[in-house]
Amino acid sequence: MQPSGHQLIGQQTVVANGASIHAIDPSTGETLIPTYAGGGKTEVDQACALAEEAFATYRESSLEERAAFLETIASEIETIGDALIERGMAETGLPRARLEGERGRTCGQLRLFASVVRAGEWLDVRLDPALPERQPLPRVDLRQRHVPLGPVAVFGASNFPLAFSVAGGDTASSLAAGCPVVVKGHSAHPGTSELVGRAVQAAVAKCELPEGVFSLLFGSGNDIGQALVADPRIQAVGFTGSRRGGQALMATAQARPQPIPVYAEMSSINPVFLLPEALKHRGGDIAESFVASLTMGAGQFCTNPGLLIGLAGPELEAFVDAAGEAVKASATQTMLTPGIHATYQDGVGALAGHDKVRQIARGPAGDGPYQCQAALFATTAADFLADDALQAEVFGASALVVECANPEEMQAVATQLDGQLTATLQMDDSDLEAAKALLPVLERQAGRVLANGWPTGVEVCHAMVHGGPFPATSDSRTTSVGSAAIQRFLRPVCYQNLPAGLLPDALKDGNPLGVSRLVDGKREA
Amino acid sequence: MQPSGHQLIGQQTVVANGASIHAIDPSTGETLIPTYAGGGKTEVDQACALAEEAFATYRESSLEERAAFLETIASEIETIGDALIERGMAETGLPRARLEGERGRTCGQLRLFASVVRAGEWLDVRLDPALPERQPLPRVDLRQRHVPLGPVAVFGASNFPLAFSVAGGDTASSLAAGCPVVVKGHSAHPGTSELVGRAVQAAVAKCELPEGVFSLLFGSGNDIGQALVADPRIQAVGFTGSRRGGQALMATAQARPQPIPVYAEMSSINPVFLLPEALKHRGGDIAESFVASLTMGAGQFCTNPGLLIGLAGPELEAFVDAAGEAVKASATQTMLTPGIHATYQDGVGALAGHDKVRQIARGPAGDGPYQCQAALFATTAADFLADDALQAEVFGASALVVECANPEEMQAVATQLDGQLTATLQMDDSDLEAAKALLPVLERQAGRVLANGWPTGVEVCHAMVHGGPFPATSDSRTTSVGSAAIQRFLRPVCYQNLPAGLLPDALKDGNPLGVSRLVDGKREA
Repeated sequence: MQPSGHQLIGQQTVVANGASIHAIDPSTGETLIPTYAGGGKTEVDQACALAEEAFATYRESSLEERAAFLETIASEIETIGDALIERGMAETGLPRARLEGERGRTCGQLRLFASVVRAGEWLDVRLDPALPERQPLPRVDLRQRHVPLGPVAVFGASNFPLAFSVAGGDTASSLAAGCPVVVKGHSAHPGTSELVGRAVQAAVAKCELPEGVFSLLFGSGNDIGQALVADPRIQAVGFTGSRRGGQALMATAQARPQPIPVYAEMSSINPVFLLPEALKHRGGDIAESFVASLTMGAGQFCTNPGLLIGLAGPELEAFVDAAGEAVKASATQTMLTPGIHATYQDGVGALAGHDKVRQIARGPAGDGPYQCQAALFATTAADFLADDALQAEVFGASALVVECANPEEMQAVATQLDGQLTATLQMDDSDLEAAKALLPVLERQAGRVLANGWPTGVEVCHAMVHGGPFPATSDSRTTSVGSAAIQRFLRPVCYQNLPAGLLPDALKDGNPLGVSRLVDGKREA
Repeated sequence: MQPSGHQLIGQQTVVANGASIHAIDPSTGETLIPTYAGGGKTEVDQACALAEEAFATYRESSLEERAAFLETIASEIETIGDALIERGMAETGLPRARLEGERGRTCGQLRLFASVVRAGEWLDVRLDPALPERQPLPRVDLRQRHVPLGPVAVFGASNFPLAFSVAGGDTASSLAAGCPVVVKGHSAHPGTSELVGRAVQAAVAKCELPEGVFSLLFGSGNDIGQALVADPRIQAVGFTGSRRGGQALMATAQARPQPIPVYAEMSSINPVFLLPEALKHRGGDIAESFVASLTMGAGQFCTNPGLLIGLAGPELEAFVDAAGEAVKASATQTMLTPGIHATYQDGVGALAGHDKVRQIARGPAGDGPYQCQAALFATTAADFLADDALQAEVFGASALVVECANPEEMQAVATQLDGQLTATLQMDDSDLEAAKALLPVLERQAGRVLANGWPTGVEVCHAMVHGGPFPATSDSRTTSVGSAAIQRFLRPVCYQNLPAGLLPDALKDGNPLGVSRLVDGKREA
């Protein structure tokens, strides 16, 4: 299967007539075919009308039907075979192993959500049986379940062409919740997007679902995305990308006659606290594993460790030296797009030119047009605390070491941090008291706190939180990775005194779906 | 205990110097003493600074400490005794029985949240144990719990001087979640607010909690509320009131450097569908119980049934006649404030003057200055569908009957409704098919769907949803009544590979808190 240059609206393939989009091979700068004619309001309107129509049926699909659909998408993606990997490599510059791994993660994610749909925890079933004899007033029968919000707009992310794009986490969790999806594909990898979109389209047909359950649109510029978020049929938005992009969608969503939730995962520098005993006993190992995490995938991860905080002294100096050497020895890697490369260069340049920041090391320059030259900088806590600009995310392999004069300064840096996706403690047993002092601060700042590991490599599981306070995301109450992501697209409904014949299956006497329930406030597994 | 005219900031009583506020006895128009000097930015700053300081300690309080605090608030409110009821009656015009009942509900609500805190479901504990042997990559240990958001701003509601005011549902659920509360008391009942505020203040002292866990501010106009929502230390907002007021707070919350969630419960007309068989067999009974619900508390409930939809014909005519007679025979009641009375008069006047609406009946005029004269109107579905203004909420005892030419028109009316707190079906067994056709539409429109009852009288329990799509509320994903309300003030945090000594109790091996947990996606009760 090769990409054809079409948008997918329901079961149709559509040729739009807007400005052209074509992918670029970032390893060469070469323009790839086919060219995609961008869509606009017409395509948004068609896709949303179909999604709204499909919602009436899809929201009522059984747990088994919905789970089977997610599994069918996974197997249809696998059926594409190597054509998907090759197109992905050409459009993103990412190596084969990474894309094969990401495909595995994408399909695994779809299958995880299938199991989540079947388990039915997401229904959050609550029953408060009638108490006809209660004084002074009887209680009527009350039952609660969660229902899907409605059609969801999903924006493909540039840095996960499979796992956070057309059939990625936002799409999987929306479909699992019972919400049709209209994807705005990322212009950096339209061919990869189309191939995956065709797999979803095929799964819709195989499962005999209404065609509007899924559409895939392309468009140059921001107009099509804004039109999609403004469409009255769209009821929620999933986005992973820049802070500016996320905030623009938040503004549009709030300005609608009916505001809707936006789940935007935006920016994070993922602070790592190098506690003294850990640094003393294994500073060299930490430096090595740090640079491996920093430079993995050219550092193009939301969880890239961009800030290290340690106590000034010989141990930190030794760490910085070792990390600097590792950065110099790191392999050159192609960045995802010319735009990301340019922004990375600007960010690194700003740090290099900052009069309170000193450059520790740069990686090798590399040969291609859009190579990432890893960078390590250092500053003092006093200077860091005095300039918020030093908290700006540099997307790509770039990190700043903050040298603290004492533990109080380390605590002050932690307290002044913006919201983060992650916060990491490098600690030994004897650092426990220092870690205990930091933990309450880090819990307030981040969605995930980890010890003795690195924040890259986000596990897709039930306990994962890939989220965090603003500006890490637009809504700290949720996660975009892991099974709890389904909750973003649901809302509770209470059914009071309904006759048995009118009750949804999830709420019927005898628990026909076999789901966990809260009965009079008590959990029945 | 008598009110003193003070604001309460932590354990202090404060005299502010802003514009004066004084309650009015709406049954006479008489001004009540004491006068309250309104607060402003100074008081907001003091209260928020204390709340932020208290959060560090209060968020770490044990389940038992927090539950005992909620129970102590309840007993301190009961200790005030009849002075609270008498002050409430003077400030609101509500009868003794209603306020005694509301006090019971308020204290019951606090005790329900104490039991919810102890049960620990709200922690949403999830464990994904390490899988060191997994291929191709091992999985590290991942655990999740929910943590409180931070200090919460709560706005007292005019129509529930106890149950949705100083120690009402928003305060109880915030405190249960571990969030300090800064209340902006409603200017209509400052004395009642102060008395309850002093009870909370006493409970804080008795439980030896940091004083900033609770403050109570007053202020005339909107400035103090806007300043409170804009304060960077406030992390969420609970509000019950008008759509205009709620939307102003939403705009302020979104315009902050760090946007925060606003839970505003705003406007709803609570449609009631009169299905044909029910109307045929018991139209008279339905008319009688309808008018009882419509006129209860002068109709000053968010769940007041303001819209009735039926099929035109002799049964609906008989229903309208019977309801009209009951309206004419209804007792006159004092409205809560001169402002609410004026707005009610405007709303009823607009319906009375609408050329597509005919007046069915008005209640007796009454003697006092701010009496509610119940009103019943009728229009056709065609006219209703043609004019969105007919969906505007009239706060108070006023309802509009919509006559549909056929079932399709009834479905069209349901589909075109704005978001609602409730939707009601009056149905007999033989109406089941008609109800089945409406239910999917009503589930999308409302937070609660009920059969053969009336939406007033909201049960405080686990399955309740007092929420719904915009404009009923600002956030359909939650409820403001019932135990699930605690979720509004929480966010998830994931702990990855933390040493045992650093794990919060909720997540420790052996489950020391004895809470329900999701282990590898499977529920352990």
